[in-house]
Amino acid sequence: MKEVHVIRRERFNSAHRLFNPTWDDAKNEKVFGKCSNKNWHGHNYILFVTVKGTIDPDTGYVIDMKILSDLIKEKIVEKMDHKNLNIEVDFMQGMVPTAENIAVQIFEELAPGVTATGNTLHCVKLCETENNFVEYYG
Amino acid sequence: MKEVHVIRRERFNSAHRLFNPTWDDAKNEKVFGKCSNKNWHGHNYILFVTVKGTIDPDTGYVIDMKILSDLIKEKIVEKMDHKNLNIEVDFMQGMVPTAENIAVQIFEELAPGVTATGNTLHCVKLCETENNFVEYYG
Amino acid sequence: MKEVHVIRRERFNSAHRLFNPTWDDAKNEKVFGKCSNKNWHGHNYILFVTVKGTIDPDTGYVIDMKILSDLIKEKIVEKMDHKNLNIEVDFMQGMVPTAENIAVQIFEELAPGVTATGNTLHCVKLCETENNFVEYYG
Amino acid sequence: MKEVHVIRRERFNSAHRLFNPTWDDAKNEKVFGKCSNKNWHGHNYILFVTVKGTIDPDTGYVIDMKILSDLIKEKIVEKMDHKNLNIEVDFMQGMVPTAENIAVQIFEELAPGVTATGNTLHCVKLCETENNFVEYYG
Amino acid sequence: MKEVHVIRRERFNSAHRLFNPTWDDAKNEKVFGKCSNKNWHGHNYILFVTVKGTIDPDTGYVIDMKILSDLIKEKIVEKMDHKNLNIEVDFMQGMVPTAENIAVQIFEELAPGVTATGNTLHCVKLCETENNFVEYYG
Amino acid sequence: MKEVHVIRRERFNSAHRLFNPTWDDAKNEKVFGKCSNKNWHGHNYILFVTVKGTIDPDTGYVIDMKILSDLIKEKIVEKMDHKNLNIEVDFMQGMVPTAENIAVQIFEELAPGVTATGNTLHCVKLCETENNFVEYYG
Repeated sequence: MKEVHVIRRERFNSAHRLFNPTWDDAKNEKVFGKCSNKNWHGHNYILFVTVKGTIDPDTGYVIDMKILSDLIKEKIVEKMDHKNLNIEVDFMQGMVPTAENIAVQIFEELAPGVTATGNTLHCVKLCETENNFVEYYG
Repeated sequence: MKEVHVIRRERFNSAHRLFNPTWDDAKNEKVFGKCSNKNWHGHNYILFVTVKGTIDPDTGYVIDMKILSDLIKEKIVEKMDHKNLNIEVDFMQGMVPTAENIAVQIFEELAPGVTATGNTLHCVKLCETENNFVEYYG
Repeated sequence: MKEVHVIRRERFNSAHRLFNPTWDDAKNEKVFGKCSNKNWHGHNYILFVTVKGTIDPDTGYVIDMKILSDLIKEKIVEKMDHKNLNIEVDFMQGMVPTAENIAVQIFEELAPGVTATGNTLHCVKLCETENNFVEYYG
Repeated sequence: MKEVHVIRRERFNSAHRLFNPTWDDAKNEKVFGKCSNKNWHGHNYILFVTVKGTIDPDTGYVIDMKILSDLIKEKIVEKMDHKNLNIEVDFMQGMVPTAENIAVQIFEELAPGVTATGNTLHCVKLCETENNFVEYYG
Repeated sequence: MKEVHVIRRERFNSAHRLFNPTWDDAKNEKVFGKCSNKNWHGHNYILFVTVKGTIDPDTGYVIDMKILSDLIKEKIVEKMDHKNLNIEVDFMQGMVPTAENIAVQIFEELAPGVTATGNTLHCVKLCETENNFVEYYG
Repeated sequence: MKEVHVIRRERFNSAHRLFNPTWDDAKNEKVFGKCSNKNWHGHNYILFVTVKGTIDPDTGYVIDMKILSDLIKEKIVEKMDHKNLNIEVDFMQGMVPTAENIAVQIFEELAPGVTATGNTLHCVKLCETENNFVEYYG
């Protein structure tokens, strides 16, 4: 039984600001600088979801990419794309929407659905800009 | 005298929404869909600025790329990066911040500074996503 | 009235072979080499469609990108994606499916629909590999 | 002795269809959809081969990239480029040519040659489209 | 007769410094800064060569990409790749090796060979870094 | 405590030659070919630095990307960008400046500064061309 990693790329465009509501504005400005701008800014986020599993000898698939893409679209893209990550995304409440926190939360949102396919969610990689990325392995 | 096009790439990350204030919310929603989300969304904008001019035989330059980059940073990036294009950018006031309008306004903001270097601003290309671009030639 | 170029990127994955049916196999092999392999090969084609028009002052759009994308999907992607360009694409019949011919035919297929939006189809760019592209301006 | 991963990128353009010959057409169509089109489709496959080894203190190389590239070209690219993966590639016979199966077979084809250089084949990554990738670690 | 632009991408990796030998070191340093470093620096240059011509109805080609690639390799890549542009490239002598001058010289070197194929050399685009490009149209 | 990998991309453009000073020119030429050209060549190096750490619940950061970027710029980019790697970079002395050796040395240079932030340097990836990469994990 060959174990293979299967990776699906999806995208979403969102607004956010880095802001810790338990701090005053001066401290947010000091820690987060322009990323804390009160009128928001935004990104074209690029997401890479890696699923680990064995190849089904009948289909040659670890997982049908359409099923994986549909899962990511239902659980993540529809909730985050063209949204404000601080205000509108239920699973981002109570935390600063850094790339690190976004990646962890996306992992938590996707893991049950991936497990239900008989595979394992291995990694969520999130690209915030062409220079800044994060990876979370659960 | 050889005429060459010189192209500089810069980037800015901004929030916006497509919204015409002379329309009610229902019409904005109908025309612009999710792009009109009242809590904003955002993009990693990529900008390509093309300057046309002749090569200085002493330097081999049409324009020193540092001068062009500094001009774009002063006139555009510092005003648009980590900003809200609807609210915070003076030269975007009074219009819907579509890629088309942003490109035209960036062209207008940059043209005098490019002309002052003895060259001509030829084109502003703006990439809003990996699938959507606009070009304005003045 | 500001004239702006609007560019939409779409993709399709197809099989083809370079083959002139008026030639025998030896001549096809001589002219087209491995590109003439009788069992086909294929590409991830990337398409850039440029539409030229003036900005609508109410919407800030030259053309709603969704309308342009839907047009390309209906006229091109649905007919070419996961298809054999020699056999299955009506508008490619009677010619060798080189990148040049594909680009010209895509232009012809798209032009009436773009004209119907009040704009002009300016350019079709087709990328066959990361090293080979063609552009057709009508 | 410093262990370093060395990665070589190569490309090949092939035709294939997802088709299990033990199923009838209806089941193939149901499982694989348009990917099962009987007239084939194709891709620009991008391959990343990772070799793990220690740096030779005289050359500063883990492996001469030309040797690695020549090995991949001989064992993989010459056999897969501009070929039909279902029909013409000996090591793909008897299985559905999914990205998963292709990556595993490429790994098996390359491993002896890499071992012969005194290094270890660590990973084969195969990109079928810009959104779909697989990785196999042996 | 359909006129199409055909574009071939090639690459070369070279050393250079921006240095005007009619100036002293202080002036070179003042004008060119770190780009004038006396021990050289280098780039992965990416070249896009655009040829304009009509489609041959028998082949579907404007020009066989192999012929265009071979021409660029013979006239440009073999002379510039892994070379020092100030010292070792005959057609770069007597000028500062800026991207502007390199693009113009490449155009001059390629034009006769392209003309000999019955087509027209339309544009040479040279990418020096991911942020700096030049285009020359003859 | 969630452990996340944070990746920062930086770039530098340098000259080098592959040359072992304990060998004569003929042996260097035999082993390294054109990469040993005595007048140098160069590359646009792209560097990916991966830091592993836990998310600070107050900031949502593993590490402020500005701190990581500043560290890489101070320790690596300022010393390597627009420099000759054989001659001018102190930490590259006494070894052939292959991608393998550069990556290992960059890792050694960066590790103490990353450790001082309370995190772990996980990987240095160096891209020498679009086809050749190395990764070092310490």
